[in-house]
Amino acid sequence: MKILITTGGTSEPIDQVRAITNQSTGRLGSAIAQACLEAGFEVTLITTEQASKPPAHPLLQQILIKTTQDLESALQSQVPQHQVLIHSMAVSDYRPVQMVPLEKVQEAKNLQAFLEPAQKDGKLSSAADHQVMFLEKTPKLIQQVKDWNPQIRLIGFKLLVSVSPEELLAVACASLTKNRADLIVANDLTQIDQNHHQAYLVEPDRVQEAQTKAEIAQKLVNFIRKES
Amino acid sequence: MKILITTGGTSEPIDQVRAITNQSTGRLGSAIAQACLEAGFEVTLITTEQASKPPAHPLLQQILIKTTQDLESALQSQVPQHQVLIHSMAVSDYRPVQMVPLEKVQEAKNLQAFLEPAQKDGKLSSAADHQVMFLEKTPKLIQQVKDWNPQIRLIGFKLLVSVSPEELLAVACASLTKNRADLIVANDLTQIDQNHHQAYLVEPDRVQEAQTKAEIAQKLVNFIRKES
Repeated sequence: MKILITTGGTSEPIDQVRAITNQSTGRLGSAIAQACLEAGFEVTLITTEQASKPPAHPLLQQILIKTTQDLESALQSQVPQHQVLIHSMAVSDYRPVQMVPLEKVQEAKNLQAFLEPAQKDGKLSSAADHQVMFLEKTPKLIQQVKDWNPQIRLIGFKLLVSVSPEELLAVACASLTKNRADLIVANDLTQIDQNHHQAYLVEPDRVQEAQTKAEIAQKLVNFIRKES
Repeated sequence: MKILITTGGTSEPIDQVRAITNQSTGRLGSAIAQACLEAGFEVTLITTEQASKPPAHPLLQQILIKTTQDLESALQSQVPQHQVLIHSMAVSDYRPVQMVPLEKVQEAKNLQAFLEPAQKDGKLSSAADHQVMFLEKTPKLIQQVKDWNPQIRLIGFKLLVSVSPEELLAVACASLTKNRADLIVANDLTQIDQNHHQAYLVEPDRVQEAQTKAEIAQKLVNFIRKES
């Protein structure tokens, strides 16, 4: 059984020294990878330089990426070679297209010109009091996974902030359908700390609850074993 | 001799899960801290969770920060208690004020309303095809250091990208005056890799060159020793 796991957070460059990052520690993905390795699965981990990683293991391969585009390339080549994808990486929703001083935006007749990529080399000057950054939506990679491999079992993640359990479950259900996922791990940032990680594991026909990263990891291993 | 060293890069939250970060590894600051410790100086290191750090040492204290505002608080309290500040941290020039869907900006009569902080809690929705982020300049902390402690010796850093040595030196000279600094380490991102780190150490009356992080660190230790 070959398991593909994504973990950590992508980052999108603003210029050569600044970036927009998703603040994901990678600890949950790392715990899941360890549980999968202990269960005897082969694991390919797509991760970032900054993310927590499991200790070296003979069944573990790692691919380091930075941007959403890197992730797309890695997924396109790896998804067809795996039976399960556990997609816990926090993927940037938006990436910078241009950053311009406020004055330029105020003078512009329309904003269309700022939605095309401009020169991104070098380091932006820091003279203006205000800057305006135009961002474009990144492709939703999770929606393409089943196109790349219709047989793969897809485990997705949904992280919200300060919502009710009802809303969290509703969003997870919608995500199951929209992404043709087999299971969604739904969690709320306010329910996560050093020792706790409350989550719902939502499948089309049942919902399980977990209280720690280790428990989430173990329940995912059971899910993979059960139907394989 | 008490040396204050800042290293790593600040990050500025966009919402609870995204941030703008400065991609500084902290390796140079860490090498400088190690050289100072080996020289027998007491070192206070202001750094970030992600940055490279020197190994534990009985003369080393660390303060972890995230944002430019955290850095300002830490510097204000620490600068008066130290004889030297080596300010190698990559500080965010701009911080997000608001992020709004493009449509809202297109409809607005003027942009002033987007320059005041709005609700930053929660996680931004990702429905719109384009978002617009309004950013404000952060205070230039290095310019305030000599107000907080007129006796401190101030070593600043200037990182540019793809400029000529002449331009780099001119910018370093201007930085010496503007920030009332005693030495500026001027470097170009394109002249830095795993093994090399070309830099000019610019003082009012002389310029030295260095080729590696270890050489920069050693020359800074010599500079501190010479005039103390």
